[in-house]
Amino acid sequence: MGLKLYGPTLSPNVVRVIAVLNEKGLDFELIPVDMKSGEHKKPEFLQINPFGQVPALEDGDIKLFESRAICRYLATKYKESGTDLLPAKTAAEMAATEIWLEVESQQFSQPISKVCFELLIKPILGMVTDEEAAEKHATDAIKILDVYEARLSQSKHLAGDEFTLADCNHMAWLNVLMMTKKACLVNDRPHLKAWWEIVSARPAWQKTAAAK
Amino acid sequence: MGLKLYGPTLSPNVVRVIAVLNEKGLDFELIPVDMKSGEHKKPEFLQINPFGQVPALEDGDIKLFESRAICRYLATKYKESGTDLLPAKTAAEMAATEIWLEVESQQFSQPISKVCFELLIKPILGMVTDEEAAEKHATDAIKILDVYEARLSQSKHLAGDEFTLADCNHMAWLNVLMMTKKACLVNDRPHLKAWWEIVSARPAWQKTAAAK
Repeated sequence: MGLKLYGPTLSPNVVRVIAVLNEKGLDFELIPVDMKSGEHKKPEFLQINPFGQVPALEDGDIKLFESRAICRYLATKYKESGTDLLPAKTAAEMAATEIWLEVESQQFSQPISKVCFELLIKPILGMVTDEEAAEKHATDAIKILDVYEARLSQSKHLAGDEFTLADCNHMAWLNVLMMTKKACLVNDRPHLKAWWEIVSARPAWQKTAAAK
Repeated sequence: MGLKLYGPTLSPNVVRVIAVLNEKGLDFELIPVDMKSGEHKKPEFLQINPFGQVPALEDGDIKLFESRAICRYLATKYKESGTDLLPAKTAAEMAATEIWLEVESQQFSQPISKVCFELLIKPILGMVTDEEAAEKHATDAIKILDVYEARLSQSKHLAGDEFTLADCNHMAWLNVLMMTKKACLVNDRPHLKAWWEIVSARPAWQKTAAAK
């Protein structure tokens, strides 16, 4: 049966899942989804994800969608495989993990993905960057990333000393951001920059980034 | 020490946490935050939540923010108290719980909260409803709720037969929606309506709704 991941690796939400699969050392089959021809809106794909979005995952008979749900499922079901991405041993560590998983989802993701969309994804898709919109989203990101800088001045990783799913879930979009002229959003913040250098040097991430 | 929840109960994100506290049968102190005077942006509150948003929770020495992180923390740390909100026993049940927790966060929350904001919260705050915006958000919600209707034609609750955190996290905003003229978004979908009638009849929810 094995693991089947559906989606193009151009999508950072697909890469979010690949990052977890590589941290867990899990083999998987990557099944391309041709979004240009609308394959993700066709009945066969809607059987896996009724919202018609990538990524989706099949683990034997189990079908999953929503990238963060897939990541958490993999981190939980395959806890003993590869890196333990949910290593919290105390209530305080668990609280920190839950907080930074949600901060990624609710605070970080929107402005960062919008900056990346304008500056890098639109040109790839043959669309024209709206520079004014990119600046607005970058300004929104500054307030968020200042909180990250303060947090990472206190701990090596987001949830504490150890690398967790909370760090891992950030990496796909940050990797895109670092390819744009707004990499300064990270590079201008010394603790955030130091954290990015540590997490992006991880062998599992190197494998993820190289395969794209 | 005890549990201290910060925030006004006008905020459905605060009510999301209260719903979990009541399902778990946990005593807590509700500490009002005067958002009109900007109390949530003052240094004392930023010590608890650096993003300056409600809700926030103190559990003894542990400080938490982001409502969904707080709910998950409570469901995990106090697993043995009251309703077990994360009862999955199989990988398939765990997958379903993770999926519908994320669907709430990524698909449901935005259009539903925006409809509620226009139709109910704006008038409370003395602002004028933008009827056109409300209609647009309601149209966005239709596509999402059609997926819920299909799901709830197959299972009693979102993650399967049992009530879980995935159901509970939806209730605060749905309760607001049901007070608006767009309650038809639920009432026009028989399985969604039946599910709402079941979950909103729960004693813990009745307690939550009565205390507002």
